Amino acid sequence: MSRTRFQQELAAVKDKILAMAALAQESVSSALEAYLLRDEQLCEFVKRTERAINSAQREIDEMTCTLLAQEQPMAVDLRFLLAVIKINRDLERIGDLAMNIRRRTREIMGTYPADLRVDFAKMGLVVDRMIRSAIRALLEGDACLADVIREMDDEVDRMNCQAHDALLHFIGENPQCARQAVAGILVAKSLERIADHASNIAVDVIFWIRAADVRHELAPDLD
Amino acid sequence: MSRTRFQQELAAVKDKILAMAALAQESVSSALEAYLLRDEQLCEFVKRTERAINSAQREIDEMTCTLLAQEQPMAVDLRFLLAVIKINRDLERIGDLAMNIRRRTREIMGTYPADLRVDFAKMGLVVDRMIRSAIRALLEGDACLADVIREMDDEVDRMNCQAHDALLHFIGENPQCARQAVAGILVAKSLERIADHASNIAVDVIFWIRAADVRHELAPDLD
Repeated sequence: MSRTRFQQELAAVKDKILAMAALAQESVSSALEAYLLRDEQLCEFVKRTERAINSAQREIDEMTCTLLAQEQPMAVDLRFLLAVIKINRDLERIGDLAMNIRRRTREIMGTYPADLRVDFAKMGLVVDRMIRSAIRALLEGDACLADVIREMDDEVDRMNCQAHDALLHFIGENPQCARQAVAGILVAKSLERIADHASNIAVDVIFWIRAADVRHELAPDLD
Repeated sequence: MSRTRFQQELAAVKDKILAMAALAQESVSSALEAYLLRDEQLCEFVKRTERAINSAQREIDEMTCTLLAQEQPMAVDLRFLLAVIKINRDLERIGDLAMNIRRRTREIMGTYPADLRVDFAKMGLVVDRMIRSAIRALLEGDACLADVIREMDDEVDRMNCQAHDALLHFIGENPQCARQAVAGILVAKSLERIADHASNIAVDVIFWIRAADVRHELAPDLD
């Protein structure tokens, strides 16, 4: 494979992983909306999106393995492909976690719509911003976004702890709504895990970018 | 690096990941015992083990990246290193999940020791067997163990669903023990996730072994 052709292949991998990230983001926001509105159609959409994410994962895994085996890339290209392998798994897990939110949604369908006094929508907004920032970091190769993402991750952790405590308290006062409250605890926990995966992606982008910087500093004449 | 030296490095990576897997197994069984016995000292042990797992993860990541960059391995060696990258992350997540069980344990310390009527010990035994089988699969390069692991994974999924339903029912009858029951739901869920990671490891071993088989069939004279 020529150098140009190889660079085109790398660009194709990047396009694929960006498209997969967009799907993952879509699945999270749809799952949360499905939960908040108890919307059966959105639940179906989440399921279809998860299938698309899984098939993208297999395709990207195949592409990266082939490129690693055939091209034996070095330095920044190797690090990019290794980062893609990790990001690929994080995105697939985000799809799984959206499916978890869907499962909890279906579990409470038909139960009394208790007011749980937890602002899931706000938590979802922060998580959504984190995923979008992780995608931007990947797209623009911007490692600076990682700090912003880490701060948002702390915020989501705090929100999850608050939701957990508030919902435990709620169950004590409204045991007849235990099912809804436990579902709420698990939805908050899924959002917190999704935030962790967005953070992982940011770390992997740094791993890739740092290699680019190092190469840039050490061997500016290589390209 | 000579071919012999390279093979020694690969063997060193395998030893490291096996040692890390043993730590992960230890952390899970200790965390569950800490939960069942409400043992503060075991909680401390889980924390120390998690630190050791994290430092092993960084070391293995470093080793695999260096070998990939310097040696540009092909075929079965490449697949082995790619499998190690994935298994490394799974083991680190198992350590995190043991920490989750520890967190729930500390949350219920001092609360009334309610009989939750869920057999966590039995669930833990299956999960423990899964991790041990995954380690054996890796050690012996035995892809056949993957089927056994998959069956056990289904069993753990069923146990988790049963525990979830039983504990929701329990809260309805004993709302004053909601904190203990919700902790139980999350412990069962952590065990189920640990089982998923053990399954992932089995899949990665297959990915590696299949490459070995393919190489064996296509080019028996290579070595």
